[in-house]
Amino acid sequence: MEHILVIHGPNLDLLGEREKEIYGKTSLPKINNLIRKRAKELKIEVRIKQLNSEGEIVSILGKERRWADGILINPAAYTHTSIAIADSILAVKIPAVEVHLSNIYKREQFRHRSLIAPVALGQISGFGESSYVLGLEALVWFLRKR
Amino acid sequence: MEHILVIHGPNLDLLGEREKEIYGKTSLPKINNLIRKRAKELKIEVRIKQLNSEGEIVSILGKERRWADGILINPAAYTHTSIAIADSILAVKIPAVEVHLSNIYKREQFRHRSLIAPVALGQISGFGESSYVLGLEALVWFLRKR
Amino acid sequence: MEHILVIHGPNLDLLGEREKEIYGKTSLPKINNLIRKRAKELKIEVRIKQLNSEGEIVSILGKERRWADGILINPAAYTHTSIAIADSILAVKIPAVEVHLSNIYKREQFRHRSLIAPVALGQISGFGESSYVLGLEALVWFLRKR
Amino acid sequence: MEHILVIHGPNLDLLGEREKEIYGKTSLPKINNLIRKRAKELKIEVRIKQLNSEGEIVSILGKERRWADGILINPAAYTHTSIAIADSILAVKIPAVEVHLSNIYKREQFRHRSLIAPVALGQISGFGESSYVLGLEALVWFLRKR
Amino acid sequence: MEHILVIHGPNLDLLGEREKEIYGKTSLPKINNLIRKRAKELKIEVRIKQLNSEGEIVSILGKERRWADGILINPAAYTHTSIAIADSILAVKIPAVEVHLSNIYKREQFRHRSLIAPVALGQISGFGESSYVLGLEALVWFLRKR
Amino acid sequence: MEHILVIHGPNLDLLGEREKEIYGKTSLPKINNLIRKRAKELKIEVRIKQLNSEGEIVSILGKERRWADGILINPAAYTHTSIAIADSILAVKIPAVEVHLSNIYKREQFRHRSLIAPVALGQISGFGESSYVLGLEALVWFLRKR
Amino acid sequence: MEHILVIHGPNLDLLGEREKEIYGKTSLPKINNLIRKRAKELKIEVRIKQLNSEGEIVSILGKERRWADGILINPAAYTHTSIAIADSILAVKIPAVEVHLSNIYKREQFRHRSLIAPVALGQISGFGESSYVLGLEALVWFLRKR
Amino acid sequence: MEHILVIHGPNLDLLGEREKEIYGKTSLPKINNLIRKRAKELKIEVRIKQLNSEGEIVSILGKERRWADGILINPAAYTHTSIAIADSILAVKIPAVEVHLSNIYKREQFRHRSLIAPVALGQISGFGESSYVLGLEALVWFLRKR
Amino acid sequence: MEHILVIHGPNLDLLGEREKEIYGKTSLPKINNLIRKRAKELKIEVRIKQLNSEGEIVSILGKERRWADGILINPAAYTHTSIAIADSILAVKIPAVEVHLSNIYKREQFRHRSLIAPVALGQISGFGESSYVLGLEALVWFLRKR
Amino acid sequence: MEHILVIHGPNLDLLGEREKEIYGKTSLPKINNLIRKRAKELKIEVRIKQLNSEGEIVSILGKERRWADGILINPAAYTHTSIAIADSILAVKIPAVEVHLSNIYKREQFRHRSLIAPVALGQISGFGESSYVLGLEALVWFLRKR
Amino acid sequence: MEHILVIHGPNLDLLGEREKEIYGKTSLPKINNLIRKRAKELKIEVRIKQLNSEGEIVSILGKERRWADGILINPAAYTHTSIAIADSILAVKIPAVEVHLSNIYKREQFRHRSLIAPVALGQISGFGESSYVLGLEALVWFLRKR
Amino acid sequence: MEHILVIHGPNLDLLGEREKEIYGKTSLPKINNLIRKRAKELKIEVRIKQLNSEGEIVSILGKERRWADGILINPAAYTHTSIAIADSILAVKIPAVEVHLSNIYKREQFRHRSLIAPVALGQISGFGESSYVLGLEALVWFLRKR
Repeated sequence: MEHILVIHGPNLDLLGEREKEIYGKTSLPKINNLIRKRAKELKIEVRIKQLNSEGEIVSILGKERRWADGILINPAAYTHTSIAIADSILAVKIPAVEVHLSNIYKREQFRHRSLIAPVALGQISGFGESSYVLGLEALVWFLRKR
Repeated sequence: MEHILVIHGPNLDLLGEREKEIYGKTSLPKINNLIRKRAKELKIEVRIKQLNSEGEIVSILGKERRWADGILINPAAYTHTSIAIADSILAVKIPAVEVHLSNIYKREQFRHRSLIAPVALGQISGFGESSYVLGLEALVWFLRKR
Repeated sequence: MEHILVIHGPNLDLLGEREKEIYGKTSLPKINNLIRKRAKELKIEVRIKQLNSEGEIVSILGKERRWADGILINPAAYTHTSIAIADSILAVKIPAVEVHLSNIYKREQFRHRSLIAPVALGQISGFGESSYVLGLEALVWFLRKR
Repeated sequence: MEHILVIHGPNLDLLGEREKEIYGKTSLPKINNLIRKRAKELKIEVRIKQLNSEGEIVSILGKERRWADGILINPAAYTHTSIAIADSILAVKIPAVEVHLSNIYKREQFRHRSLIAPVALGQISGFGESSYVLGLEALVWFLRKR
Repeated sequence: MEHILVIHGPNLDLLGEREKEIYGKTSLPKINNLIRKRAKELKIEVRIKQLNSEGEIVSILGKERRWADGILINPAAYTHTSIAIADSILAVKIPAVEVHLSNIYKREQFRHRSLIAPVALGQISGFGESSYVLGLEALVWFLRKR
Repeated sequence: MEHILVIHGPNLDLLGEREKEIYGKTSLPKINNLIRKRAKELKIEVRIKQLNSEGEIVSILGKERRWADGILINPAAYTHTSIAIADSILAVKIPAVEVHLSNIYKREQFRHRSLIAPVALGQISGFGESSYVLGLEALVWFLRKR
Repeated sequence: MEHILVIHGPNLDLLGEREKEIYGKTSLPKINNLIRKRAKELKIEVRIKQLNSEGEIVSILGKERRWADGILINPAAYTHTSIAIADSILAVKIPAVEVHLSNIYKREQFRHRSLIAPVALGQISGFGESSYVLGLEALVWFLRKR
Repeated sequence: MEHILVIHGPNLDLLGEREKEIYGKTSLPKINNLIRKRAKELKIEVRIKQLNSEGEIVSILGKERRWADGILINPAAYTHTSIAIADSILAVKIPAVEVHLSNIYKREQFRHRSLIAPVALGQISGFGESSYVLGLEALVWFLRKR
Repeated sequence: MEHILVIHGPNLDLLGEREKEIYGKTSLPKINNLIRKRAKELKIEVRIKQLNSEGEIVSILGKERRWADGILINPAAYTHTSIAIADSILAVKIPAVEVHLSNIYKREQFRHRSLIAPVALGQISGFGESSYVLGLEALVWFLRKR
Repeated sequence: MEHILVIHGPNLDLLGEREKEIYGKTSLPKINNLIRKRAKELKIEVRIKQLNSEGEIVSILGKERRWADGILINPAAYTHTSIAIADSILAVKIPAVEVHLSNIYKREQFRHRSLIAPVALGQISGFGESSYVLGLEALVWFLRKR
Repeated sequence: MEHILVIHGPNLDLLGEREKEIYGKTSLPKINNLIRKRAKELKIEVRIKQLNSEGEIVSILGKERRWADGILINPAAYTHTSIAIADSILAVKIPAVEVHLSNIYKREQFRHRSLIAPVALGQISGFGESSYVLGLEALVWFLRKR
Repeated sequence: MEHILVIHGPNLDLLGEREKEIYGKTSLPKINNLIRKRAKELKIEVRIKQLNSEGEIVSILGKERRWADGILINPAAYTHTSIAIADSILAVKIPAVEVHLSNIYKREQFRHRSLIAPVALGQISGFGESSYVLGLEALVWFLRKR
């Protein structure tokens, strides 16, 4: 049974209240239920964290590096500014999938560049809560095909 | 039963021969079988085309616009250069998902910018032949949730 | 009686269906009727083509170069990406007028640069179907003043 | 009978003396006659001004804003440097057509960007004195089709 | 006996008519004769194509990939815009030499960047019809030294 | 009793008519009343000018330099283009506060750069007519704390 | 009685020790007294925090979002680097005023761009401790005029 | 006896009061005396104007174009922003020498680019009031050597 | 006896596990032993911290500012993104030496720019664990030469 | 019998020792023998120099300008930095062919721009020692066709 | 009697042969005579050098630093590429005047930036051999006014 | 006993006279004594050269390549402009340490980019004459640990 660490970046705890025309009406607890349900079907174990601080995300990656077989991460605003999180993913050497609720390429110019994408296995962007489900499947596909 | 138009861009007919360290060992016929198999499970109908010419992709999008409910497109090299294909997707007003075999953000700088992404529903990049399967699922999620 | 080659670029066959807030409600056949009517009044002969492929536009320019005295071209998406069409206009040495239905300077940044404009006689942009009519008049003014 | 305010920007009073290989041999009085003649045929009334100062152009636009139904403007050098004139056109909320004698896209790089074009109805560039005539027609087409 | 595929890009069929101060007075048939004559002397077999469409060049490279031992290509305008042709050369894994009639570094800024050069064996630019002859020799040198 | 020169830049005479979604419904006379009322309370004397020309603003600054103890300036469009006004403020060596009705950082990219800000005491942007009142208070705070 | 959350960003606890030629001689406790005094006069309630971590600022904004009617924030160094704080302000949908002690446009180039300004109501920069007082007044003006 | 039009741009009337560490202690009347004295020695006639408005400089160049054989111009702030003055110098076809009191290349980045220099005969920068004297001599050298 | 605060930035706790081809095989405890040993020889006292959060680094600098005579800092990923840490070093006014294990100029483009270097005494980059030892010596040289 | 001056730029004396994966195993004496042999066959006379200094290359071009009918130059590192050598080639007015052992467009970004190419007859890049032989032939073709 | 070191940069020995449409018909010996003649009239002593190597110019500046009171330098191509010569001028602390025969702002873009100008007293550009004479006068003005 | 070649770049012979606020009061002979003293202690042999010419530095590196085990280089101004010296270091394949007296990142923007750093073992910048001593130690650490 593979272990997947799921990380939600800054402000994602406000989902459902926050700009609904961009992020949809769903809330973080509902997304987490969806992730847990799909994890069960796929027979994988998940640990889910929501963290607002870049340093805490770096620390959790370091701390869980022996437990986790894969990382599912929505870095939110840190997608575009955090070299530290990218370095962390490289350092722990665990395959990571980057997901986004909204299509970041439809938004402001500064959201088009991801510092995380070059160190991730791949990126899934634009499918609301389904981005997480597709990301879980992508991780499982990768871990099991090896 | 939804209709999905699947478009493979230039050079994808050479898959399996071509730089295997980037694109993997699979071939286009094998990918197409995978797509058809998953389409059957999802109860959707697919039409698959491989086209080397930007103008032919524009034309097929125009021609199939009444039949198709969704578009699954790997624009390959045209991802980075074709405003015409992006305009086509806007013009036919059909939801499109952009997929890539390789993680384009791990490659040369000029492959980091997609002209298609801002007009697509979303983008999936980096999961080999699974990118297509995940893309189909994303389209079905979108079409059925509406 | 002067001969004018009229070229409509990619996706213009979808006019009237396509983003009406930008391109208006008119359709390509209606625009072509307008062109033919004005041509008759101006006592010029027109040949009209709609082509989705950059290469076909290059070829038609080469093929019609002995027949045509002037070119009226709406290069659509190729306005911003095609050095080949610009080279073609230089190569055939026939005066060309570039027209656009919408005001390209009111739209996305990447539509502000025309690769065709520096090799054209002039540019008319923003007057809907009237851009073509004004373009015909401009060509006639130029051909007859010589 | 529509009212059109025609504005000639800086240095246009020197036309005919000035670089003839770029601007042609015609003079400003001859262009104004052409404008008046075509205005009569189109049954519109025109007021024509030549102004060297950016601030005067801003002031005349403010002053004539109740009289004018349309603006025909050749902003000359201010095309590329004046946000104030662009703001003025926005402020008076009157449709404006930007015209140029020469094809500005055939000239120096700094003449390729127009600050006026994004706030104008459309742009006509490259047809000598005919640019003004075509511009008048474009304005009439717009005002009468509303 | 090595097989060399010779590809002439867009507008090269108009050589001899086209801007003679840049491309010289020779015509495409004369260049092809020169190529065939030198090929005979070098004891190599050539197939020569002139194609205006980016997609057709991609297709011919795919189609001839088993026959050809080397590629001699003048990509003309596509030199500066086609990632698809560059990907094609990488995909077919055949050594390619890029040639230009004119010295592209003496011309407009946008002609200084070649997307083909980084995937070619080498580049020869500026020697008129002799660029092709030198290119053939370079290919033979490379194929025979291996 | 301190003397404050208040300068309204180009187009501000059209306030109230002009794009109300950006600048609000107030008019220039109403703003001037507000300024005069607050000046009285603060026991300062004001002179108020609205000028459309960059050169006139330069001249008024020169002319009033002996009378004025402080400058309150809304340079409007000249904020982004006038080195001459910035030089003027430096030359007269009088503390200046730059104010804007709208938040210029929420608007087009070219409005984000102020040439005036680096020579001003400070900048206040985004509070409608209150920007002027806050600016007066800031000037008084600065002049009286010295 | 409106509730205002006042946030001081990183290093502002060192005020008074830190580069006095830029930030003045005042200390954070003195500024906080000034804020509390003015708040009392304006009949508003304030909560004041000084935080060095980007993630903590994001968290406090989330936590206080139901209590606060307005935000007064000096983001200090995060002004120029934090998309997360800007996203937070958008997410909590509370009007925010950005203030700076020094005139950031008089300093290094990298301090001229604020990522916070486009999501704030407005910006006040350059008036030392008075920037906070003016910011409070601006918030009150905005909240009471609604 | 050659006629030289001497133009001082915006803010130069404040010389002597204005930033003395950059412009020196001399005043405009003293500079004009120096110019007149040297003109007498060189047996040339001068007309001297100080103008704050870009439009007025354009107008004076137009108005004096039949009288003047040469132009000596210190465009001050307009050096870096005025295409209109540059166009004026081209239009009147009179040799112009650009002078600056300070060395503009030792100052802010935005003062390093002159829009006037490419249309002037030459540029002299950095020698205080002597820049004018040297400029007069340069003009005389040019006019008499022809 | 001088006091030196040694700060290891984010992810440095993973040294020895992390990309060994870049950072070498040594671990953080081994580096700390080396630092302590050399400090003893140089007769200085050290305090060593490893921190993953930008805000914590800012706080520790503030907190230790009265104890520390010098700072030895490897800011890791924050080298390239943290204005807050740079501001902190300026604010505490203690000489700081920036060190890197790897030669940052041999790596990705975004690692070539250090925001810390301009506020540090100097920078040492590329000598593995020896970078720290050399850094200690540099600090001692500076503190004792004063 | 034409005279050709052959110039090898800096570091080319180290060929054969130096990065062999880029420059191949051949040495400079072997290349010179190849050049002399081919020169003999082509009935031209050659003078060959290897020079490490930019100034010496400028001097040799000046000194040999009366003897030489053509120049064959591998400017090595000076390709990308020397305006002086480019000016020299312009000054002596002798046709020059630029050659490179490696394909400079496959290497670092800063090697893609040649300052020499715009003043040369043409460029040959990527064919190892054969680049020199092809360059000799190109020069002979040019000199004899005149 | 002041001592002036006159330095002519690379290729200036070829003057008179070299592109006459840019540099005029005069030769270096004639210019040197002109300099010596004017020096005599001004009662100054000159030493004149023409050097092709950047390093030699650096060396001569170092060597003559005790003799020279002023430097008159035409750095030719090194104007745009040599930080070493600029550093040299700073290091020897002798006032330097930069002169150019042609107006460098009328030429290619890369000739518009001078690395020497920011460390020179001033710059004179565009007056042929007179640039040197004016430069001598400027130096004398500066040295004698001190 | 390891052999270290020490190279001082252009203008370093003027140390002690030259801008002392940047480079300190020490002279080159004093630095060389310091280097020789430390070399003796470390039991290494040094050869020290000061060279003003880029080409001479290239030549000395070639000439001493068999003698030297390590290179200690302060490339001074050539740090930022010389690809030739960087190529030389690559060509001779000897570990090199780049040192600077001043902190180059505290100075002008053009001094922030080193062309040498990417080919050096590491860089030490900002510690005056100690930079050389630390550089020697770094080289010894590297050579002895191998």
